[in-house]
Amino acid sequence: MTRTVYNTATTLDGFIATSDHSLDWLLSRQIDQNGPMNHADFEKRVGAIVMGSSTYRWVREHEPESWAYSMPAWVLTHRQDLEPHPGADIRITAADTPEALTALHTEMVAAAGGRDVWVVGGGDLAGQFADAGLLDEVVVSIAPVTIGAGAPLLPRHVELVRTEWAVNGEFVCVRYDVVKA
Amino acid sequence: MTRTVYNTATTLDGFIATSDHSLDWLLSRQIDQNGPMNHADFEKRVGAIVMGSSTYRWVREHEPESWAYSMPAWVLTHRQDLEPHPGADIRITAADTPEALTALHTEMVAAAGGRDVWVVGGGDLAGQFADAGLLDEVVVSIAPVTIGAGAPLLPRHVELVRTEWAVNGEFVCVRYDVVKA
Repeated sequence: MTRTVYNTATTLDGFIATSDHSLDWLLSRQIDQNGPMNHADFEKRVGAIVMGSSTYRWVREHEPESWAYSMPAWVLTHRQDLEPHPGADIRITAADTPEALTALHTEMVAAAGGRDVWVVGGGDLAGQFADAGLLDEVVVSIAPVTIGAGAPLLPRHVELVRTEWAVNGEFVCVRYDVVKA
Repeated sequence: MTRTVYNTATTLDGFIATSDHSLDWLLSRQIDQNGPMNHADFEKRVGAIVMGSSTYRWVREHEPESWAYSMPAWVLTHRQDLEPHPGADIRITAADTPEALTALHTEMVAAAGGRDVWVVGGGDLAGQFADAGLLDEVVVSIAPVTIGAGAPLLPRHVELVRTEWAVNGEFVCVRYDVVKA
């Protein structure tokens, strides 16, 4: 059964990027790519991905020559100036309301073909999925650093239940089920 | 050798209290008081404690009849209206500068008699200790919840190295050494 999963790295104080969109605090860290709760194993279970415009622009700027994902991707934004990466299966769209997001989510689940939907980020997009009752899991890789300000992990009240955890390299990784109202 | 340790519970998104000083998100959680990284074992190694005025007022309001700590305590504040709990060893003082904090820290270390100094909170006080190069460790008990806003865990850039970790009840507990510049 498809699960909708927000999987992200975060600082210990709950930021997924600095205020100026830097991930230097993250990319400098040691992790075992084959270790427990590694990202490759996670991605194998993913059949569709969705991200906000900031996340999309970050990926495009930092990997301008390639698109890392073979699965169908959605970028949720009101911006008119975003272009899909050539040759990639990327749908740029807005989903203004919980109803629109729910309809789009149905589309994503169908596209995922029994695999999971990965909410790549950012935090507010994950929050919109949570608000609409569509978010099933939160998976965090916690880096050993506080940065004091930045883009918030998940700017909502969301109750969680831990289902898995591991240490991998410098990270503490935890998987949670979202408690739905 | 005395270590100066900021030990606190936090939400997954890095808040130690809600914006209106509530800890309801924390106090509702299950934890094994005798389990790994439990607080009683931590407190046995503590010889002096220090907290800011918000933390102090929270403790006084929620435990008006008693004072939970037998070791010497400092409350760092500019406020003139705080009174020590009757019969408790509480010194209310301001330490305006890194130099003043360093001098006060020397006093705390002496009072701790070889045990540790516990920075109870809040986050900015822990940050002041970090700024002055006086913070040795950060210990967090991460509750399975995000709240989206509130009092920040540690509003600074602080690099950390994980030294211990455990799951206890609903919490993920992690101990870090502070990387000093």
